[in-house]
Amino acid sequence: MNNPIGIFDSGVGGLTVAREVFKLLPQEDVVYFGDVGRYPYGGRSKDIITKFTNQDILFLLEHKVKFIICACNSASSVALDDISGNYEIPIIGVIKPGAIAAIEKTRNDRIGVIGTVATINSNAYARIIHKERPDIKVFSLACPLFVPLAEEGYIEKKATYLIAQDYLQTMRDVNIDTLILGCTHYPLLKNVIEDVMGDSVTLIDSGEETAREAYKILMEKSMINSAASQQPVPEGEHKFFVSDVPEKFTQVASRFLGRPVDRVTRVDISGY
Amino acid sequence: MNNPIGIFDSGVGGLTVAREVFKLLPQEDVVYFGDVGRYPYGGRSKDIITKFTNQDILFLLEHKVKFIICACNSASSVALDDISGNYEIPIIGVIKPGAIAAIEKTRNDRIGVIGTVATINSNAYARIIHKERPDIKVFSLACPLFVPLAEEGYIEKKATYLIAQDYLQTMRDVNIDTLILGCTHYPLLKNVIEDVMGDSVTLIDSGEETAREAYKILMEKSMINSAASQQPVPEGEHKFFVSDVPEKFTQVASRFLGRPVDRVTRVDISGY
Repeated sequence: MNNPIGIFDSGVGGLTVAREVFKLLPQEDVVYFGDVGRYPYGGRSKDIITKFTNQDILFLLEHKVKFIICACNSASSVALDDISGNYEIPIIGVIKPGAIAAIEKTRNDRIGVIGTVATINSNAYARIIHKERPDIKVFSLACPLFVPLAEEGYIEKKATYLIAQDYLQTMRDVNIDTLILGCTHYPLLKNVIEDVMGDSVTLIDSGEETAREAYKILMEKSMINSAASQQPVPEGEHKFFVSDVPEKFTQVASRFLGRPVDRVTRVDISGY
Repeated sequence: MNNPIGIFDSGVGGLTVAREVFKLLPQEDVVYFGDVGRYPYGGRSKDIITKFTNQDILFLLEHKVKFIICACNSASSVALDDISGNYEIPIIGVIKPGAIAAIEKTRNDRIGVIGTVATINSNAYARIIHKERPDIKVFSLACPLFVPLAEEGYIEKKATYLIAQDYLQTMRDVNIDTLILGCTHYPLLKNVIEDVMGDSVTLIDSGEETAREAYKILMEKSMINSAASQQPVPEGEHKFFVSDVPEKFTQVASRFLGRPVDRVTRVDISGY
Protein backbone atom coordinates (compact mmCIF):
# COMPACT_ATOMS: atom_id res chain seq x y z
CA MET A 1 0.00 0.00 0.00
CA ASN A 2 1.96 2.94 -1.32
CA ASN A 3 -0.07 5.85 -0.01
CA PRO A 4 1.72 8.21 2.37
CA ILE A 5 1.66 8.23 6.17
CA GLY A 6 0.13 11.39 7.66
CA ILE A 7 1.58 13.01 10.76
CA PHE A 8 0.14 16.10 12.42
CA ASP A 9 0.96 18.23 15.40
CA SER A 10 0.08 21.66 16.75
CA GLY A 11 3.45 22.88 15.50
CA VAL A 12 7.04 21.75 15.20
CA GLY A 13 7.11 19.36 18.17
CA GLY A 14 5.75 16.45 16.14
CA LEU A 15 8.88 16.58 14.03
CA THR A 16 10.68 14.63 16.75
CA VAL A 17 8.11 11.89 16.04
CA ALA A 18 8.52 12.33 12.26
CA ARG A 19 12.28 11.97 12.72
CA GLU A 20 11.79 8.55 14.32
CA VAL A 21 9.32 7.54 11.57
CA PHE A 22 11.85 8.54 8.88
CA LYS A 23 14.43 6.34 10.63
CA LEU A 24 12.25 3.24 11.09
CA LEU A 25 10.24 3.53 7.86
CA PRO A 26 12.63 5.19 5.40
CA GLN A 27 10.75 3.98 2.32
CA GLU A 28 7.44 5.61 3.33
CA ASP A 29 6.14 8.83 1.86
CA VAL A 30 5.12 11.17 4.68
CA VAL A 31 2.82 14.19 4.73
CA TYR A 32 3.44 16.31 7.83
CA PHE A 33 1.01 19.00 8.92
CA GLY A 34 2.10 21.49 11.60
CA ASP A 35 -0.74 23.70 12.83
CA VAL A 36 1.62 26.57 13.68
CA GLY A 37 -1.12 29.14 13.00
CA ARG A 38 -3.07 27.82 15.99
CA TYR A 39 -0.18 26.63 18.12
CA PRO A 40 -0.07 25.77 21.01
CA TYR A 41 -2.91 23.29 21.65
CA GLY A 42 -1.70 22.66 25.21
CA GLY A 43 -3.59 25.06 27.47
CA ARG A 44 -6.67 25.24 25.19
CA SER A 45 -10.05 23.70 26.00
CA LYS A 46 -11.12 20.20 25.03
CA ASP A 47 -13.75 21.62 22.61
CA ILE A 48 -11.22 23.65 20.70
CA ILE A 49 -8.57 20.92 20.65
CA THR A 50 -11.17 18.44 19.34
CA LYS A 51 -12.26 20.81 16.57
CA PHE A 52 -8.66 21.46 15.52
CA THR A 53 -7.81 17.74 15.59
CA ASN A 54 -10.73 16.89 13.27
CA GLN A 55 -9.63 19.59 10.84
CA ASP A 56 -6.04 18.35 10.88
CA ILE A 57 -7.22 14.80 10.10
CA LEU A 58 -9.49 15.99 7.27
CA PHE A 59 -6.59 17.88 5.72
CA LEU A 60 -4.36 14.78 5.80
CA LEU A 61 -7.14 12.57 4.38
CA GLU A 62 -7.20 14.84 1.32
CA HIS A 63 -3.66 13.62 0.71
CA LYS A 64 -4.97 10.02 0.67
CA VAL A 65 -2.89 8.98 3.66
CA LYS A 66 -3.16 5.32 4.68
CA PHE A 67 -2.35 5.85 8.35
CA ILE A 68 -2.26 8.85 10.67
CA ILE A 69 -0.07 9.63 13.64
CA CYS A 70 -1.37 12.34 15.93
CA ALA A 71 2.03 13.53 17.15
CA CYS A 72 0.58 16.07 19.55
CA ASN A 73 0.33 14.96 23.17
CA SER A 74 -2.39 17.48 23.97
CA ALA A 75 -4.56 16.33 21.04
CA SER A 76 -3.77 12.66 21.72
CA SER A 77 -4.77 12.97 25.34
CA VAL A 78 -7.92 15.07 25.19
CA ALA A 79 -9.42 14.54 21.71
CA LEU A 80 -8.23 11.40 19.94
CA ASP A 81 -10.13 8.70 21.86
CA ASP A 82 -13.45 10.41 21.09
CA ILE A 83 -12.91 10.88 17.36
CA SER A 84 -10.46 8.34 15.94
CA GLY A 85 -13.27 5.80 15.52
CA ASN A 86 -15.04 8.15 13.11
CA TYR A 87 -12.43 7.57 10.41
CA GLU A 88 -11.78 4.52 8.24
CA ILE A 89 -7.98 4.44 8.46
CA PRO A 90 -5.95 3.66 11.59
CA ILE A 91 -5.11 6.74 13.67
CA ILE A 92 -2.73 6.47 16.61
CA GLY A 93 -1.65 8.99 19.19
CA VAL A 94 1.56 9.35 21.18
CA ILE A 95 0.14 8.56 24.62
CA LYS A 96 -0.48 4.82 24.50
CA PRO A 97 2.90 3.79 23.03
CA GLY A 98 4.70 5.88 25.66
CA ALA A 99 2.57 4.50 28.50
CA ILE A 100 3.05 0.87 27.43
CA ALA A 101 6.80 1.31 27.05
CA ALA A 102 7.00 2.77 30.55
CA ILE A 103 5.10 -0.18 32.00
CA GLU A 104 7.58 -2.53 30.35
CA LYS A 105 10.61 -0.59 31.63
CA THR A 106 9.74 0.14 35.25
CA ARG A 107 11.20 -2.19 37.87
CA ASN A 108 9.97 -0.43 41.03
CA ASP A 109 6.47 0.28 39.61
CA ARG A 110 6.83 4.03 40.04
CA ILE A 111 6.47 6.02 36.81
CA GLY A 112 6.74 9.79 36.29
CA VAL A 113 5.09 11.72 33.45
CA ILE A 114 6.01 15.25 32.39
CA GLY A 115 4.16 17.28 29.75
CA THR A 116 2.11 20.39 29.01
CA VAL A 117 -0.68 21.55 31.32
CA ALA A 118 -3.33 20.08 28.96
CA THR A 119 -1.64 16.67 28.80
CA ILE A 120 -1.09 16.48 32.54
CA ASN A 121 -4.60 17.71 33.41
CA SER A 122 -6.08 15.11 31.06
CA ASN A 123 -4.37 12.41 33.14
CA ALA A 124 -4.22 10.36 29.92
CA TYR A 125 -0.91 8.57 30.62
CA ALA A 126 -1.98 7.58 34.14
CA ARG A 127 -5.34 6.32 32.86
CA ILE A 128 -3.72 4.00 30.29
CA ILE A 129 -1.08 2.79 32.74
CA HIS A 130 -3.73 2.02 35.38
CA LYS A 131 -5.93 0.21 32.88
CA GLU A 132 -3.09 -2.25 32.30
CA ARG A 133 -1.51 -2.19 35.74
CA PRO A 134 -3.63 -0.64 38.52
CA ASP A 135 -0.82 -1.28 41.01
CA ILE A 136 1.67 1.08 39.39
CA LYS A 137 2.11 4.49 41.02
CA VAL A 138 2.06 7.39 38.54
CA PHE A 139 3.33 10.90 39.29
CA SER A 140 2.45 13.61 36.76
CA LEU A 141 3.90 17.09 36.44
CA ALA A 142 3.42 19.98 33.98
CA CYS A 143 6.65 21.69 32.92
CA PRO A 144 5.31 24.61 30.85
CA LEU A 145 8.64 26.39 30.30
CA PHE A 146 10.24 23.36 28.60
CA VAL A 147 8.40 24.02 25.30
CA PRO A 148 9.57 27.61 24.79
CA LEU A 149 13.09 26.65 25.92
CA ALA A 150 13.22 23.82 23.34
CA GLU A 151 11.76 26.00 20.58
CA GLU A 152 14.21 28.79 21.23
CA GLY A 153 17.07 26.31 21.17
CA TYR A 154 17.83 27.45 24.70
CA ILE A 155 19.24 24.08 25.63
CA GLU A 156 22.86 23.88 26.74
CA LYS A 157 22.40 26.76 29.16
CA LYS A 158 22.75 27.13 32.90
CA ALA A 159 19.27 28.75 33.11
CA THR A 160 17.66 25.73 31.45
CA TYR A 161 19.44 23.42 33.86
CA LEU A 162 18.19 25.47 36.84
CA ILE A 163 14.60 25.42 35.54
CA ALA A 164 14.81 21.64 34.98
CA GLN A 165 16.17 21.18 38.50
CA ASP A 166 13.39 23.31 39.90
CA TYR A 167 10.62 21.49 37.99
CA LEU A 168 11.97 17.98 38.46
CA GLN A 169 12.78 18.16 42.16
CA THR A 170 9.42 16.58 43.06
CA MET A 171 10.03 13.80 40.53
CA ARG A 172 13.33 13.04 42.26
CA ASP A 173 11.67 13.09 45.69
CA VAL A 174 9.09 10.44 44.78
CA ASN A 175 11.68 7.87 43.74
CA ILE A 176 10.48 7.00 40.22
CA ASP A 177 12.68 4.78 38.05
CA THR A 178 11.01 5.63 34.72
CA LEU A 179 10.07 9.06 33.34
CA ILE A 180 7.84 9.55 30.30
CA LEU A 181 8.69 12.59 28.18
CA GLY A 182 5.02 13.27 27.52
CA CYS A 183 5.57 16.18 25.12
CA THR A 184 7.18 15.98 21.70
CA HIS A 185 9.36 18.99 22.46
CA TYR A 186 11.02 17.37 25.42
CA PRO A 187 13.41 15.02 23.56
CA LEU A 188 15.38 18.17 22.70
CA LEU A 189 16.00 18.64 26.42
CA LYS A 190 16.78 14.96 26.97
CA ASN A 191 20.39 15.56 28.06
CA VAL A 192 19.39 18.18 30.62
CA ILE A 193 16.54 16.03 31.99
CA GLU A 194 18.85 12.99 32.12
CA ASP A 195 21.47 15.02 34.01
CA VAL A 196 18.95 16.22 36.56
CA MET A 197 17.20 12.87 37.05
CA GLY A 198 20.39 10.82 37.24
CA ASP A 199 21.38 7.40 35.89
CA SER A 200 18.84 5.41 37.87
CA VAL A 201 15.90 6.84 35.91
CA THR A 202 15.05 5.59 32.40
CA LEU A 203 13.60 8.23 30.08
CA ILE A 204 10.81 7.15 27.72
CA ASP A 205 10.59 9.15 24.49
CA SER A 206 6.92 8.93 23.44
CA GLY A 207 7.84 9.88 19.87
CA GLU A 208 10.27 7.00 19.53
CA GLU A 209 7.73 4.54 20.96
CA THR A 210 5.01 5.86 18.65
CA ALA A 211 7.20 5.35 15.57
CA ARG A 212 7.77 1.74 16.71
CA GLU A 213 4.01 1.27 17.14
CA ALA A 214 3.40 2.68 13.63
CA TYR A 215 5.96 0.26 12.21
CA LYS A 216 4.29 -2.67 13.99
CA ILE A 217 0.79 -1.80 12.77
CA LEU A 218 1.90 -1.22 9.16
CA MET A 219 3.66 -4.60 9.18
CA GLU A 220 0.73 -6.44 10.76
CA LYS A 221 -1.78 -4.93 8.34
CA SER A 222 0.54 -5.39 5.32
CA MET A 223 0.43 -1.67 4.67
CA ILE A 224 4.18 -1.16 4.20
CA ASN A 225 5.19 0.67 1.00
CA SER A 226 6.30 -1.89 -1.62
CA ALA A 227 9.55 0.05 -2.06
CA ALA A 228 10.67 -1.50 1.23
CA SER A 229 11.55 -4.71 -0.62
CA GLN A 230 13.93 -2.96 -3.03
CA GLN A 231 17.69 -2.94 -2.44
CA PRO A 232 18.83 -0.37 -1.56
CA VAL A 233 15.58 0.90 -0.04
CA PRO A 234 14.69 4.15 -1.84
CA GLU A 235 13.88 7.08 0.42
CA GLY A 236 10.25 8.14 0.57
CA GLU A 237 9.07 11.65 -0.21
CA HIS A 238 8.52 13.98 2.77
CA LYS A 239 6.10 16.87 2.37
CA PHE A 240 5.54 19.55 4.98
CA PHE A 241 2.46 21.76 5.37
CA VAL A 242 1.85 24.51 7.92
CA SER A 243 -1.07 26.81 8.75
CA ASP A 244 0.88 30.08 8.85
CA VAL A 245 3.97 31.54 7.16
CA PRO A 246 6.58 28.78 6.89
CA GLU A 247 9.66 30.83 7.90
CA LYS A 248 9.72 30.13 11.62
CA PHE A 249 8.72 26.49 11.06
CA THR A 250 11.50 25.97 8.55
CA GLN A 251 14.03 27.49 10.92
CA VAL A 252 13.00 25.56 14.04
CA ALA A 253 12.32 22.38 12.04
CA SER A 254 15.92 21.91 11.03
CA ARG A 255 16.87 21.81 14.71
CA PHE A 256 14.12 19.30 15.47
CA LEU A 257 14.77 17.03 12.47
CA GLY A 258 18.52 17.33 12.52
CA ARG A 259 18.57 18.28 8.82
CA PRO A 260 17.37 21.18 6.63
CA VAL A 261 13.67 21.16 5.69
CA ASP A 262 12.52 22.42 2.32
CA ARG A 263 9.22 22.33 0.46
CA VAL A 264 7.11 23.74 3.29
CA THR A 265 3.67 24.75 1.98
CA ARG A 266 1.18 26.98 3.73
CA VAL A 267 -2.47 25.92 3.94
CA ASP A 268 -5.58 27.63 5.36
CA ILE A 269 -6.69 25.00 7.87
CA SER A 270 -9.79 26.90 9.06
CA GLY A 271 -11.56 25.84 5.85
CA TYR A 272 -11.43 22.12 6.76
CA MET B 1 -19.87 60.19 26.87
CA ASN B 2 -20.60 57.26 29.11
CA ASN B 3 -19.95 54.34 26.79
CA PRO B 4 -17.17 51.97 27.85
CA ILE B 5 -13.55 51.92 26.69
CA GLY B 6 -12.57 48.76 24.81
CA ILE B 7 -9.19 47.11 25.32
CA PHE B 8 -8.03 44.02 23.48
CA ASP B 9 -4.95 41.87 23.41
CA SER B 10 -3.93 38.45 22.18
CA GLY B 11 -4.16 37.22 25.76
CA VAL B 12 -3.40 38.35 29.29
CA GLY B 13 -0.53 40.73 28.50
CA GLY B 14 -2.85 43.65 27.78
CA LEU B 15 -3.98 43.52 31.38
CA THR B 16 -0.84 45.46 32.32
CA VAL B 17 -2.24 48.21 30.06
CA ALA B 18 -5.74 47.79 31.54
CA ARG B 19 -4.23 48.14 35.02
CA GLU B 20 -2.82 51.57 34.08
CA VAL B 21 -6.16 52.59 32.50
CA PHE B 22 -8.01 51.60 35.68
CA LYS B 23 -5.58 53.79 37.64
CA LEU B 24 -5.76 56.89 35.43
CA LEU B 25 -9.42 56.61 34.43
CA PRO B 26 -11.11 54.98 37.43
CA GLN B 27 -14.61 56.19 36.49
CA GLU B 28 -14.58 54.58 33.05
CA ASP B 29 -16.39 51.35 32.23
CA VAL B 30 -13.99 49.00 30.45
CA VAL B 31 -14.60 45.97 28.24
CA TYR B 32 -11.46 43.84 27.96
CA PHE B 33 -11.14 41.12 25.33
CA GLY B 34 -8.26 38.62 25.59
CA ASP B 35 -7.92 36.41 22.53
CA VAL B 36 -6.45 33.55 24.54
CA GLY B 37 -7.90 30.99 22.12
CA ARG B 38 -5.57 32.27 19.38
CA TYR B 39 -2.70 33.45 21.56
CA PRO B 40 0.09 34.31 20.82
CA TYR B 41 -0.11 36.78 17.92
CA GLY B 42 3.67 37.37 18.04
CA GLY B 43 5.28 34.97 15.60
CA ARG B 44 2.23 34.83 13.30
CA SER B 45 2.02 36.36 9.83
CA LYS B 46 0.79 39.87 9.07
CA ASP B 47 -2.27 38.46 7.24
CA ILE B 48 -3.38 36.42 10.22
CA ILE B 49 -2.67 39.16 12.77
CA THR B 50 -4.66 41.65 10.65
CA LYS B 51 -7.63 39.29 10.40
CA PHE B 52 -7.60 38.64 14.15
CA THR B 53 -7.29 42.37 14.94
CA ASN B 54 -10.33 43.23 12.81
CA GLN B 55 -12.35 40.52 14.56
CA ASP B 56 -11.28 41.78 18.00
CA ILE B 57 -12.35 45.33 17.09
CA LEU B 58 -15.72 44.15 15.72
CA PHE B 59 -16.38 42.27 18.95
CA LEU B 60 -15.65 45.37 21.06
CA LEU B 61 -17.81 47.58 18.80
CA GLU B 62 -20.76 45.33 19.61
CA HIS B 63 -20.34 46.56 23.19
CA LYS B 64 -20.72 50.16 21.93
CA VAL B 65 -17.25 51.18 23.07
CA LYS B 66 -16.34 54.83 22.49
CA PHE B 67 -12.61 54.28 22.23
CA ILE B 68 -10.37 51.27 21.65
CA ILE B 69 -6.90 50.47 22.90
CA CYS B 70 -5.09 47.75 21.02
CA ALA B 71 -2.95 46.56 23.92
CA CYS B 72 -1.08 44.00 21.85
CA ASN B 73 2.32 45.11 20.56
CA SER B 74 2.29 42.57 17.73
CA ALA B 75 -1.13 43.74 16.48
CA SER B 76 -0.23 47.40 17.05
CA SER B 77 2.95 47.09 15.05
CA VAL B 78 1.90 44.98 12.08
CA ALA B 79 -1.86 45.51 11.66
CA LEU B 80 -3.20 48.67 13.28
CA ASP B 81 -1.90 51.36 10.90
CA ASP B 82 -3.59 49.66 7.96
CA ILE B 83 -7.00 49.20 9.53
CA SER B 84 -7.65 51.77 12.29
CA GLY B 85 -8.85 54.30 9.70
CA ASN B 86 -11.67 51.95 8.70
CA TYR B 87 -13.51 52.54 11.98
CA GLU B 88 -15.38 55.61 13.22
CA ILE B 89 -14.09 55.68 16.80
CA PRO B 90 -10.51 56.46 17.85
CA ILE B 91 -8.30 53.35 18.06
CA ILE B 92 -4.80 53.62 19.50
CA GLY B 93 -2.02 51.09 19.80
CA VAL B 94 0.80 50.72 22.31
CA ILE B 95 3.69 51.49 19.94
CA LYS B 96 3.43 55.23 19.37
CA PRO B 97 2.99 56.28 23.03
CA GLY B 98 6.02 54.18 24.00
CA ALA B 99 8.12 55.54 21.16
CA ILE B 100 7.26 59.18 21.90
CA ALA B 101 7.97 58.75 25.62
CA ALA B 102 11.38 57.25 24.81
CA ILE B 103 12.24 60.20 22.54
CA GLU B 104 11.38 62.56 25.41
CA LYS B 105 13.47 60.61 27.94
CA THR B 106 16.69 59.89 26.06
CA ARG B 107 19.64 62.17 26.69
CA ASN B 108 22.28 60.40 24.61
CA ASP B 109 19.92 59.70 21.67
CA ARG B 110 20.42 55.93 21.90
CA ILE B 111 17.21 53.96 22.50
CA GLY B 112 16.77 50.22 22.92
CA VAL B 113 13.57 48.29 22.15
CA ILE B 114 12.80 44.76 23.35
CA GLY B 115 9.72 42.75 22.34
CA THR B 116 8.40 39.64 20.59
CA VAL B 117 9.81 38.47 17.27
CA ALA B 118 6.82 39.96 15.39
CA THR B 119 7.15 43.36 17.05
CA ILE B 120 10.90 43.54 16.52
CA ASN B 121 10.72 42.30 12.90
CA SER B 122 8.06 44.91 12.14
CA ASN B 123 10.56 47.60 13.19
CA ALA B 124 7.53 49.66 14.24
CA TYR B 125 9.14 51.45 17.20
CA ALA B 126 12.21 52.42 15.17
CA ARG B 127 10.04 53.71 12.32
CA ILE B 128 8.05 56.03 14.60
CA ILE B 129 11.15 57.23 16.43
CA HIS B 130 12.92 57.96 13.13
CA LYS B 131 9.92 59.79 11.72
CA GLU B 132 10.20 62.26 14.62
CA ARG B 133 13.95 62.20 15.15
CA PRO B 134 15.98 60.61 12.32
CA ASP B 135 19.21 61.22 14.28
CA ILE B 136 18.33 58.89 17.16
CA LYS B 137 19.99 55.47 17.10
CA VAL B 138 17.59 52.60 17.78
CA PHE B 139 18.66 49.07 18.79
CA SER B 140 15.96 46.37 18.70
CA LEU B 141 16.05 42.90 20.18
CA ALA B 142 13.56 40.03 20.43
CA CYS B 143 13.46 38.32 23.85
CA PRO B 144 11.07 35.41 23.15
CA LEU B 145 11.50 33.64 26.50
CA PHE B 146 10.34 36.68 28.51
CA VAL B 147 6.66 36.03 27.69
CA PRO B 148 6.49 32.43 28.96
CA LEU B 149 8.58 33.39 32.01
CA ALA B 150 6.15 36.22 32.86
CA GLU B 151 3.08 34.06 32.27
CA GLU B 152 4.39 31.25 34.43
CA GLY B 153 5.17 33.73 37.17
CA TYR B 154 8.76 32.57 36.90
CA ILE B 155 10.07 35.95 37.97
CA GLU B 156 12.17 36.14 41.12
CA LYS B 157 14.35 33.27 39.99
CA LYS B 158 18.02 32.88 39.26
CA ALA B 159 17.22 31.27 35.87
CA THR B 160 15.18 34.29 34.80
CA TYR B 161 18.01 36.60 35.82
CA LEU B 162 20.49 34.53 33.77
CA ILE B 163 18.23 34.59 30.71
CA ALA B 164 17.76 38.37 31.05
CA GLN B 165 21.53 38.83 31.36
CA ASP B 166 22.06 36.69 28.29
CA TYR B 167 19.45 38.51 26.17
CA LEU B 168 20.29 42.03 27.32
CA GLN B 169 24.08 41.81 27.05
CA THR B 170 23.98 43.39 23.57
CA MET B 171 21.76 46.18 24.87
CA ARG B 172 24.36 46.94 27.54
CA ASP B 173 27.17 46.87 24.97
CA VAL B 174 25.57 49.52 22.74
CA ASN B 175 25.32 52.09 25.52
CA ILE B 176 21.62 52.98 25.36
CA ASP B 177 20.17 55.22 28.09
CA THR B 178 16.50 54.38 27.45
CA LEU B 179 14.90 50.95 26.96
CA ILE B 180 11.35 50.47 25.70
CA LEU B 181 9.53 47.44 27.14
CA GLY B 182 7.84 46.75 23.81
CA CYS B 183 5.70 43.87 25.02
CA THR B 184 2.88 44.08 27.55
CA HIS B 185 4.21 41.07 29.43
CA TYR B 186 7.54 42.68 30.17
CA PRO B 187 6.45 45.04 32.99
CA LEU B 188 6.19 41.88 35.12
CA LEU B 189 9.93 41.40 34.65
CA LYS B 190 10.69 45.09 35.24
CA ASN B 191 12.77 44.49 38.39
CA VAL B 192 14.93 41.86 36.69
CA ILE B 193 15.43 44.00 33.58
CA GLU B 194 16.23 47.03 35.73
CA ASP B 195 18.77 45.01 37.71
CA VAL B 196 20.50 43.79 34.56
CA MET B 197 20.49 47.14 32.74
CA GLY B 198 21.59 49.21 35.73
CA ASP B 199 20.59 52.63 37.05
CA SER B 200 21.77 54.60 34.05
CA VAL B 201 19.05 53.17 31.80
CA THR B 202 15.44 54.42 31.98
CA LEU B 203 12.79 51.80 31.27
CA ILE B 204 9.73 52.89 29.28
CA ASP B 205 6.57 50.91 29.99
CA SER B 206 4.52 51.14 26.78
CA GLY B 207 1.36 50.21 28.66
CA GLU B 208 1.73 53.08 31.11
CA GLU B 209 2.39 55.54 28.27
CA THR B 210 -0.62 54.24 26.33
CA ALA B 211 -2.93 54.77 29.31
CA ARG B 212 -1.66 58.36 29.51
CA GLU B 213 -2.32 58.84 25.79
CA ALA B 214 -5.85 57.44 26.21
CA TYR B 215 -6.47 59.86 29.07
CA LYS B 216 -5.23 62.78 26.95
CA ILE B 217 -7.41 61.92 23.95
CA LEU B 218 -10.54 61.36 26.05
CA MET B 219 -9.99 64.75 27.73
CA GLU B 220 -9.34 66.57 24.45
CA LYS B 221 -12.37 65.06 22.76
CA SER B 222 -14.59 65.53 25.84
CA MET B 223 -15.27 61.82 25.93
CA ILE B 224 -14.66 61.33 29.67
CA ASN B 225 -17.44 59.53 31.56
CA SER B 226 -19.62 62.09 33.36
CA ALA B 227 -19.11 60.17 36.61
CA ALA B 228 -15.63 61.71 36.74
CA SER B 229 -17.13 64.93 38.10
CA GLN B 230 -18.76 63.19 41.07
CA GLN B 231 -17.13 63.20 44.48
CA PRO B 232 -15.95 60.63 45.33
CA VAL B 233 -15.44 59.32 41.80
CA PRO B 234 -17.43 56.07 41.48
CA GLU B 235 -15.53 53.12 40.06
CA GLY B 236 -16.44 52.06 36.52
CA GLU B 237 -17.53 48.55 35.64
CA HIS B 238 -14.85 46.21 34.26
CA LYS B 239 -15.94 43.31 32.06
CA PHE B 240 -13.62 40.60 30.78
CA PHE B 241 -14.14 38.39 27.73
CA VAL B 242 -11.88 35.63 26.42
CA SER B 243 -11.94 33.33 23.39
CA ASP B 244 -11.28 30.05 25.23
CA VAL B 245 -12.00 28.59 28.67
CA PRO B 246 -11.53 31.36 31.24
CA GLU B 247 -9.69 29.31 33.90
CA LYS B 248 -6.11 30.00 32.89
CA PHE B 249 -6.91 33.63 32.09
CA THR B 250 -8.51 34.17 35.48
CA GLN B 251 -5.54 32.64 37.22
CA VAL B 252 -2.82 34.56 35.34
CA ALA B 253 -4.92 37.75 35.26
CA SER B 254 -4.85 38.23 39.00
CA ARG B 255 -1.04 38.30 38.86
CA PHE B 256 -1.10 40.80 35.99
CA LEU B 257 -3.77 43.09 37.47
CA GLY B 258 -2.64 42.81 41.04
CA ARG B 259 -6.17 41.87 42.15
CA PRO B 260 -8.62 38.99 41.63
CA VAL B 261 -10.60 39.00 38.38
CA ASP B 262 -14.16 37.75 38.25
CA ARG B 263 -16.91 37.87 35.62
CA VAL B 264 -14.80 36.42 32.78
CA THR B 265 -17.04 35.41 29.87
CA ARG B 266 -16.10 33.17 26.97
CA VAL B 267 -16.94 34.23 23.42
CA ASP B 268 -16.48 32.51 20.04
CA ILE B 269 -14.38 35.13 18.25
CA SER B 270 -14.14 33.23 14.95
CA GLY B 271 -17.71 34.29 14.18
CA TYR B 272 -16.80 38.00 14.01
